[in-house]
Amino acid sequence: MHARLEEIAAIVGAGNVLTGADVAQRRVDWMTGASCRAGAIVRPGSTDELAAVMRLCHLAGQPVVTHGGLTGLVHGGEAGPDELAISLERMDAIEAIDTIGGTVTVQAGTPLQTVQEAADAEDLVFPLDLGARGSCTIGGNIATNAGGVRVIRYGMMRQQVLGLEAVLADGTVVTSMNRMLKNNAGYDLKQLFIGSEGTLGIVTRAVLRLQPKPGSERTALVACPSFDGVAGLLGHMGRELGGSLGTFEVMWRNHYALLTEESGRHTPPLPTRWPYYAIIESLGGDDDENAARFEATLESALDAGLIEDAVLAQSDTQRRGIWAIREDIEGLIQHLAPLFTFDVSLPIPDMPDYAESLETALHERWPSGRLVVFGHLGDGNLHVSVSVGSDDPDTRRAVERLVYAPLAKLGGSVSAEHGIGLEKRDYLAISRTPEEIALMRTLKRALDPQGLLNRHKILSLER
Amino acid sequence: MHARLEEIAAIVGAGNVLTGADVAQRRVDWMTGASCRAGAIVRPGSTDELAAVMRLCHLAGQPVVTHGGLTGLVHGGEAGPDELAISLERMDAIEAIDTIGGTVTVQAGTPLQTVQEAADAEDLVFPLDLGARGSCTIGGNIATNAGGVRVIRYGMMRQQVLGLEAVLADGTVVTSMNRMLKNNAGYDLKQLFIGSEGTLGIVTRAVLRLQPKPGSERTALVACPSFDGVAGLLGHMGRELGGSLGTFEVMWRNHYALLTEESGRHTPPLPTRWPYYAIIESLGGDDDENAARFEATLESALDAGLIEDAVLAQSDTQRRGIWAIREDIEGLIQHLAPLFTFDVSLPIPDMPDYAESLETALHERWPSGRLVVFGHLGDGNLHVSVSVGSDDPDTRRAVERLVYAPLAKLGGSVSAEHGIGLEKRDYLAISRTPEEIALMRTLKRALDPQGLLNRHKILSLER
Repeated sequence: MHARLEEIAAIVGAGNVLTGADVAQRRVDWMTGASCRAGAIVRPGSTDELAAVMRLCHLAGQPVVTHGGLTGLVHGGEAGPDELAISLERMDAIEAIDTIGGTVTVQAGTPLQTVQEAADAEDLVFPLDLGARGSCTIGGNIATNAGGVRVIRYGMMRQQVLGLEAVLADGTVVTSMNRMLKNNAGYDLKQLFIGSEGTLGIVTRAVLRLQPKPGSERTALVACPSFDGVAGLLGHMGRELGGSLGTFEVMWRNHYALLTEESGRHTPPLPTRWPYYAIIESLGGDDDENAARFEATLESALDAGLIEDAVLAQSDTQRRGIWAIREDIEGLIQHLAPLFTFDVSLPIPDMPDYAESLETALHERWPSGRLVVFGHLGDGNLHVSVSVGSDDPDTRRAVERLVYAPLAKLGGSVSAEHGIGLEKRDYLAISRTPEEIALMRTLKRALDPQGLLNRHKILSLER
Repeated sequence: MHARLEEIAAIVGAGNVLTGADVAQRRVDWMTGASCRAGAIVRPGSTDELAAVMRLCHLAGQPVVTHGGLTGLVHGGEAGPDELAISLERMDAIEAIDTIGGTVTVQAGTPLQTVQEAADAEDLVFPLDLGARGSCTIGGNIATNAGGVRVIRYGMMRQQVLGLEAVLADGTVVTSMNRMLKNNAGYDLKQLFIGSEGTLGIVTRAVLRLQPKPGSERTALVACPSFDGVAGLLGHMGRELGGSLGTFEVMWRNHYALLTEESGRHTPPLPTRWPYYAIIESLGGDDDENAARFEATLESALDAGLIEDAVLAQSDTQRRGIWAIREDIEGLIQHLAPLFTFDVSLPIPDMPDYAESLETALHERWPSGRLVVFGHLGDGNLHVSVSVGSDDPDTRRAVERLVYAPLAKLGGSVSAEHGIGLEKRDYLAISRTPEEIALMRTLKRALDPQGLLNRHKILSLER
């Protein structure tokens, strides 16, 4: 540690500098059971406090790691003993809701679900949604450009952010709290901080866009006879529902059957014999109209042979039951641990071959290995989980190579939504060119010349 | 000129280096009648040619100005005798359309309308749309983050770009032609080049997102009794039509009446006595269903007193007739020249007071001055045109101060969609903080340390 903790304590208060057991009792992140190894955890209560802390760190050459809800999956929150973890947990206020302009102004430590509920109370919607909603924070959602289950309708986190405030590595506060839907007055600086995983600045506050609450939300689980059926169904729903298509999530049979019949964790709403299952939602104004249109669209898909069977949720309980299968990551972990999870994107037509070849390759090397696939099909994004009975580093590397190698020639991405962190850093070059990576380094050097912010994340050390 | 034109000619061919009368016969841009004053115009035929030209310019310290369709409104294309204009007019190919993935790969010099038509031929939509569609280019749309009349449904140009290629100031080619809808593999570099008006790199190619073609497109012109009616109508249509609301364009009476009754240029589809008029479009799957829902939604707005009168386009000719009033900028120029045009954004509730106070202030100083207002209300974006009988620099400054000054305390923007260019450079600080402008300079220095690209645009010279 280069920074002097007593100086930091003088800024944030002694109770907000955690050390020793107070640090060790925290976990690195949601997936990793290990203890946090940071030299200390600092909890600023305001942007000004954080700026003062960063000015000290800048002078001392003290590297920092930003902590949000710690639900990330790529070890982005990992910190070593020489690093200071900065947790935004005390900066969790919703500062303002503008119901006419449709914006909410929040501090970065606010949990996603809190923002969703605040919007809901005003008859509006904050549409970003993902399984970790109760723990993940807005700051983390911004830093990782989070995706989730409503991207097909509302876009990723990047599309929800109108303005933000960030503290730079030297403690400069860049307040860019734009509330306008359109603002072409110079460079759109917020884009620098969205999806750069805290390596260019620490997001402290944001103005987020709210949407009108759909009067009606209808959910169906359908079974498809083939991947052509799934892809055809996506096109069909897109054409027929237009802007009302709210969700198109697909589970391969290996996901659906495991979490229902095989594990007994959920009652299967449809038999488990079909190769693909999709959760589809239609958002509309009038409920009767939306329900009628949704049913008619599903019926014509049935007639066209795109789906084999379907169940429409008749209640919120049924809806939650369907989603529980899709979102039961704990079930996956419990039954398949040790588990490697991946988050790739690739062209939709290439998906079935990719998944099949991957399964074949896994079985060649690990005959009892298991592959589970689900994902945001409409976004070209698959979550692939692999279990081969071991999670030692060599095994991990071998599995990673199998998962990532085919993506280069498909023009796919090693990370659709989880980010790079430490975990995928060595695979960045599969999805990005040397010139792109060089330009990333140029940006990093320009904004954080000492390399203090989330050191070693995304970009490896320069050689 | 620092660069040697014969070296450039050796790269692009002698016929693609224009000088003398060939330069002077070109206009600076669509609004400005004056001749182009660039030292020469270079027309590269490929990214490689442009990269080679930029490597020469980099060595010679030769500043360049990029030319797209020259339809910009902020003097972004202006070049002096010591500058080299780079026109992408020869790079106008549509390289590929992926109808399954819903993407089109285009060269930057391709006109917007060509891309729209290519998508249409495949039963898809490229949704960016604006009046200059026939002349403006995709490269210019990207460089300026163009907006237009479909932003409320599909977002601005930024949302349409999946990947792009850019040539940096030193001739490095950054090929970031992502085709994935989601790609969080490292920094999202394309954001640097979108909306930075060619000051950080020259966009050469792009992968654009295409959308399913709506089966139905219904258009109405409505008259509103008050601004509360207009704002209420926007909320009403957003709630009832949801994702189907395709357009919500508003004309103040001073626009609508001038271009119909007063000028005789268009037949008014509705009487000119109401204070506000809106063009509303509903996009849907099934035409009967869309038409019925649209009519019902308009009828309930009529019942609620949000609108006074409405006409639904019964044919494509009627639809074009309605749009012709909105888009008749030539009519505005012809009747009000000399004319100053502005493009501001501000909170919707502040709009009527803003426009009224502005008119009062104008009349105090220029009793016969005229104000014309129309805009993308749903986006918080107004286009304000002012005619006071003179366009000398002092008058321009005085009008600019009246238009821009109130925006600072409203949190508005001096440019919603047109950009900053040279015209609004001195007003950037109304919408952006010193820290934001300093960060813009940091980026500019990092990517273009010699300041060769679109010199003096957006950011003034450092003092």
